[in-house]
Amino acid sequence: MAEPSTRPTLARIAEEAGVSLATISKVLNGRADVAPGTRHRVEELLATHQYRRRGAGGAHAPLIELVFHELHSGWSMEVIRGVQQAADENGLAVVLTRSGTRHAPGAEWIGGVIARRPECVVLVFSEIPAAMRETLAARGIPFAVVDPAGDPAPDVPAVGSANWAGGLAAVRHLIELRHRRIAVISGPTDMMCSHARVDGYRAAMTAAGLPIRNEWIRYGDFHTTGGAEGARRLLALDEPPTAIFAGSDLQALGVYEVARERGLRIPEDLSVVGYDDLPFAEWLSPRLTTVHQPLEAMGRAAALLAIRIARGEIHDTPRLDLATSLVARESTAPIGARAGEAG
Amino acid sequence: MAEPSTRPTLARIAEEAGVSLATISKVLNGRADVAPGTRHRVEELLATHQYRRRGAGGAHAPLIELVFHELHSGWSMEVIRGVQQAADENGLAVVLTRSGTRHAPGAEWIGGVIARRPECVVLVFSEIPAAMRETLAARGIPFAVVDPAGDPAPDVPAVGSANWAGGLAAVRHLIELRHRRIAVISGPTDMMCSHARVDGYRAAMTAAGLPIRNEWIRYGDFHTTGGAEGARRLLALDEPPTAIFAGSDLQALGVYEVARERGLRIPEDLSVVGYDDLPFAEWLSPRLTTVHQPLEAMGRAAALLAIRIARGEIHDTPRLDLATSLVARESTAPIGARAGEAG
Repeated sequence: MAEPSTRPTLARIAEEAGVSLATISKVLNGRADVAPGTRHRVEELLATHQYRRRGAGGAHAPLIELVFHELHSGWSMEVIRGVQQAADENGLAVVLTRSGTRHAPGAEWIGGVIARRPECVVLVFSEIPAAMRETLAARGIPFAVVDPAGDPAPDVPAVGSANWAGGLAAVRHLIELRHRRIAVISGPTDMMCSHARVDGYRAAMTAAGLPIRNEWIRYGDFHTTGGAEGARRLLALDEPPTAIFAGSDLQALGVYEVARERGLRIPEDLSVVGYDDLPFAEWLSPRLTTVHQPLEAMGRAAALLAIRIARGEIHDTPRLDLATSLVARESTAPIGARAGEAG
Repeated sequence: MAEPSTRPTLARIAEEAGVSLATISKVLNGRADVAPGTRHRVEELLATHQYRRRGAGGAHAPLIELVFHELHSGWSMEVIRGVQQAADENGLAVVLTRSGTRHAPGAEWIGGVIARRPECVVLVFSEIPAAMRETLAARGIPFAVVDPAGDPAPDVPAVGSANWAGGLAAVRHLIELRHRRIAVISGPTDMMCSHARVDGYRAAMTAAGLPIRNEWIRYGDFHTTGGAEGARRLLALDEPPTAIFAGSDLQALGVYEVARERGLRIPEDLSVVGYDDLPFAEWLSPRLTTVHQPLEAMGRAAALLAIRIARGEIHDTPRLDLATSLVARESTAPIGARAGEAG
């Protein structure tokens, strides 16, 4: 590998790859008319030599690219609004793309982003494959991550939120309402935020001297189905919980559904706490007590981070965790409360 | 004004404007370094001479621009998803911008879109100012409109939905459930779709031989507040309605809120029909009976329309109204029904 002081020129890379400079230029600009094998060889050499386009910024379009794997109704729109706001403030337009899985963008995305040459990229993913990062770096396109899963690579500029503290706050609230049999339905086990929220649950229970049973801890999918499935199992226990921390607002909806099926009233018979605080949380009946995850602010902060890196104002890889906070509404009540006493 | 056969060259426009060809080119490409007065003079001449860039398409970026005045949570995301789908199918990326008022995009938007040079534009607005249309036409950037308000200019390619039929279906459903005192809370009076939905209401009532009272027809704002305000007035009448067609899902939420305040049960004491069928409609308790407005399909159809115009496959200005349909859930029941009989 070359020393930084002997930074290879494109000519040298062209020679090593056995192709013309024009071909190297095509690969750098994301043009389609290059054979896949050639493209691959050139990309590898660009990465090996840690090639970086000089004077990044000048040649870029005034765009910021925002990449999701899925466009959820509530969740994604909060992040989009935040990115849009940062873009407006900085004279950029937002390109919205959808690619890949929950964990990382798909390979097909990278060709598009190189051709579009945005000033910078905001990714709503936890993992950015090394090859993808190299490809972006070679074009001088910096990125920052909005990290929903709570586990970004250590050298990635990322904005997350305080998942452990959110779990703690949710369960402390239930303990203050004198609940003792408290269950949790967290997210998928392959997302660190699921574990962080369960650890917050454990910390609150332990600090209050309350027992924790294994069957009270469940993992879902962050969607309605996972919440309903978890609630069905929990409410079928010999000693069912009197309160459920549902891990997400959508899972809380699933819990509402199962409670309704079983004729349980919320909050009189069962207290429920969500997570996220999406707009619909306050439209539900009863209005959902939940942990506010500042998704709009996270989107804005990640976009500002990427823009400042692109403009050379930041040179390290900052990490931010924005605060979460409990929003008490109507779905939680003191244990044994009846209608009229609740709230 | 020049005849189409004597189409003026840019040289002639430059001469008339008293500027260089380079300046004309800067204006055409949306560059910032042109004095506002000069820009204005050149735009006017381009419009007067009906200048059209030749070979439109080649010089464009593979982008489709989607413009909203506001990023609502549910509503906008449905449209975005549809546009994104059409863009994916056609190798385009989506630029998402926010501008203007409910009626028309703001003037600041036009400079940005010219500089970005997208292949085409989808506007979620009813009115496109003539100067803006000329500016886009001169650059060979076609557009289509997703028309939420139901009143696009006759020469604008637009995709709407069947508002009158939607109002009719909502009220027919209530009449079939033997309601006779049926009220409507429609949208703002300056949107044609509000009137179309009320006319559908009138048609259903008249066809069934039911009386219509003026105080049963109210106009709101399509938001929760408008629904709550309307419901408060309607339920305070000496003979309050037994069913309310709420005009939008958000207004239906407002009706739910007021019903809860007054201890009225839905649907036992009051039937409610929404409009839009946003994702949250089926999460409400009770699940909302509503008119499905195919927002995702409308976004997709408008994007495909704009793309086909951009690619020279369509030369007229097509208009589409996609069908609406009633989705019966739990918020409506036969008049006088009690829990257990409902549904």
